Amino acid sequence: MKKIKGKLPNVPGFKAGGISCGIKGNKALDLAMIVSDPPATAAGVFTTNRVQSPSVVFSKGSLAMKRKYKAIVVNSGNANACTGPQGMEDCRNVARGVAAELDVSSKQILVASTGIIGVPLPAEKIVTATPQLTQAMSEKGWGNAAKAIMTTDLTQKVAGLSYQRYGKTFSLGGITKGSGMIHPNMATMLGFIVTDVAIRPIALKTALKTAVQKTFNCITVDGDQSTNDCVMIMANGLAGNAELNASTAGYDQFVESLTELCKSLALQIVEDGEGATKFATVRVKGAKSESSAHQVANSVAKSSLFKTALFGEDPNWGRILAAVGYAGVPFNEEEICISLNGLILFQKGLPTKSAGSVALQKKMKAKNIVVEIDLAKGRHEVEVYTCDLSYDYVKINAEYTT
Amino acid sequence: MKKIKGKLPNVPGFKAGGISCGIKGNKALDLAMIVSDPPATAAGVFTTNRVQSPSVVFSKGSLAMKRKYKAIVVNSGNANACTGPQGMEDCRNVARGVAAELDVSSKQILVASTGIIGVPLPAEKIVTATPQLTQAMSEKGWGNAAKAIMTTDLTQKVAGLSYQRYGKTFSLGGITKGSGMIHPNMATMLGFIVTDVAIRPIALKTALKTAVQKTFNCITVDGDQSTNDCVMIMANGLAGNAELNASTAGYDQFVESLTELCKSLALQIVEDGEGATKFATVRVKGAKSESSAHQVANSVAKSSLFKTALFGEDPNWGRILAAVGYAGVPFNEEEICISLNGLILFQKGLPTKSAGSVALQKKMKAKNIVVEIDLAKGRHEVEVYTCDLSYDYVKINAEYTT
Repeated sequence: MKKIKGKLPNVPGFKAGGISCGIKGNKALDLAMIVSDPPATAAGVFTTNRVQSPSVVFSKGSLAMKRKYKAIVVNSGNANACTGPQGMEDCRNVARGVAAELDVSSKQILVASTGIIGVPLPAEKIVTATPQLTQAMSEKGWGNAAKAIMTTDLTQKVAGLSYQRYGKTFSLGGITKGSGMIHPNMATMLGFIVTDVAIRPIALKTALKTAVQKTFNCITVDGDQSTNDCVMIMANGLAGNAELNASTAGYDQFVESLTELCKSLALQIVEDGEGATKFATVRVKGAKSESSAHQVANSVAKSSLFKTALFGEDPNWGRILAAVGYAGVPFNEEEICISLNGLILFQKGLPTKSAGSVALQKKMKAKNIVVEIDLAKGRHEVEVYTCDLSYDYVKINAEYTT
Repeated sequence: MKKIKGKLPNVPGFKAGGISCGIKGNKALDLAMIVSDPPATAAGVFTTNRVQSPSVVFSKGSLAMKRKYKAIVVNSGNANACTGPQGMEDCRNVARGVAAELDVSSKQILVASTGIIGVPLPAEKIVTATPQLTQAMSEKGWGNAAKAIMTTDLTQKVAGLSYQRYGKTFSLGGITKGSGMIHPNMATMLGFIVTDVAIRPIALKTALKTAVQKTFNCITVDGDQSTNDCVMIMANGLAGNAELNASTAGYDQFVESLTELCKSLALQIVEDGEGATKFATVRVKGAKSESSAHQVANSVAKSSLFKTALFGEDPNWGRILAAVGYAGVPFNEEEICISLNGLILFQKGLPTKSAGSVALQKKMKAKNIVVEIDLAKGRHEVEVYTCDLSYDYVKINAEYTT
């Protein structure tokens, strides 16, 4: 399989960089930028939380105008959330400062923020650091950009891929951050993706939504959802293809590649889940609908009892069945089948011999756990990805602001 | 205030007892019984989990017949869940064994189970121990009964109260268990309540539902809901009042007292929440409906980030607002008001000075935390009770079966 995870984006026309502007202290990287030359078509998917950071409101509003965009500027260490009208003014100031430095209109600048809630954004620190940030931009600056958007993340998260079609090469790349407060529908996660595909804004948005639905919206770390999160994509058209729309030949292949890229980024978030020692895939099949499959998978993937059992390597499969039972989706206890890493544990209404076996205890020691639940009610299938709940999750989150 | 919590039930006609029958090993108490003389009217509220223990199915089915009941027999250490047709046969065998010992019909016996899922119930151990259990029954046996239904509970949970009306004394008492897997709609919790009120079966069921809705259904420890849980009540009529129905004078006072008793029992569960070091009340007011108030309160009370912040005494109020934001209930950021132990932290769309204050840091050190959220959308108010998420919660649940 070709390497996607960890591959630095290499997309014609895009540069990235990350510096320290003093928000975090300790000279930690906390300011990143992605620039496109020429300016790019862009789209975004944003948090569904009713409390939204002015940074989210600003970028969402800007993207609705379907302009060409020059840059995305992202700070970590401060979420610019619950900051009222001043928070919006700070976004405008950041956009103006960056635009002046890049010699474009501030309408071509998108912003994003992550970090602590309720503290005014030190916009002047960002603006003051802009010349230094511009100097730091390069085709190879993705690693620093990925570092500069991290909060409790332990690892930087990047991915890149390319594909061929009709003798042309199309490239995609991206960075993401997120570790806790991770749950479907845009949790505390930022993702920034670039591509040289030429594509119309509406088709780009549809493609992004499709890819996010199957990837970023299928991961959960702790079930908490934040005020800030977004995935944005810029497409600068340098590949030179005829501009794609949703009915063009070539659109499906783009969506497929974008989904592949997003999946790599999303899984990197789960692997780096706060305190995580295990990676779990919860696969629900035989569901009547995709949404009911999601409901069941999320119920298991969110269960604190399932997640602590993973951490303790405790073969407590009854917690899986109990979580399926309270998901609110009808099924028959006699028809359902549950397996873990290939061992069938429950079927025909009863635990199998494997359920109490030494073989199961061994399987629990694996780093990667795949739970499969067949509801025997239909043809829909969904996978949700999560991690275990460990002492370190508690430690990290008990001591976040203090 | 009169003492309710910890007061041993003292209700005419009822005896209780608890012994070890060898399910748990180590001679730990694991079998409890409550007996009424004369046989009592009874009612129950049961788990809404789609996977239900045969013990739940058995007792629910029996109560639907609206008979008079002689006894409730409860084992801990084995949930008799996911045990198929054999599980139901085991319930019948337990009921027959106990009935023979008490010289009544097995139709007058109710059962309940809690413990590990998916292991056949050792019904013969229970039946064999029945003579010893019968010997152990007494008016003062409630402490042992409360101990014998415990699983990961650290403390036994009992409550008792009485009230006067028209010169008569009415008594209520109960025991409960539960510590993890606690969430609204009957989580992993068993509760058994007795009273000497004379009341019709349908009125008794309505009264119990009303009381449970405001008490046991307002607590959450970890958001997990089990396959077994129930609250059952027996009313033997020895107080000698004219039988109550829902429109009788005296019914409301009974419901009020029952609610008071259930609240004491429910709060004892949260106080003993697995690994808990803090007790939190999440009060939502100004809601458009009671259900939307519940939705918001549960969203905060279930948030792992809020609960770890409580444990770490971290004044991270942004997590409260974020959890309100993803509850799915409309509100305006500018109108909402959030306070913690009386300190207003967020209003008019902005954090107050208290939000970053030393005063708040001090308030976080309290054992009891009251979060109040005013949605400014209506007149409904709800309180939900929870505890913090600590290292010990993880420890207890990572090592449960091994």
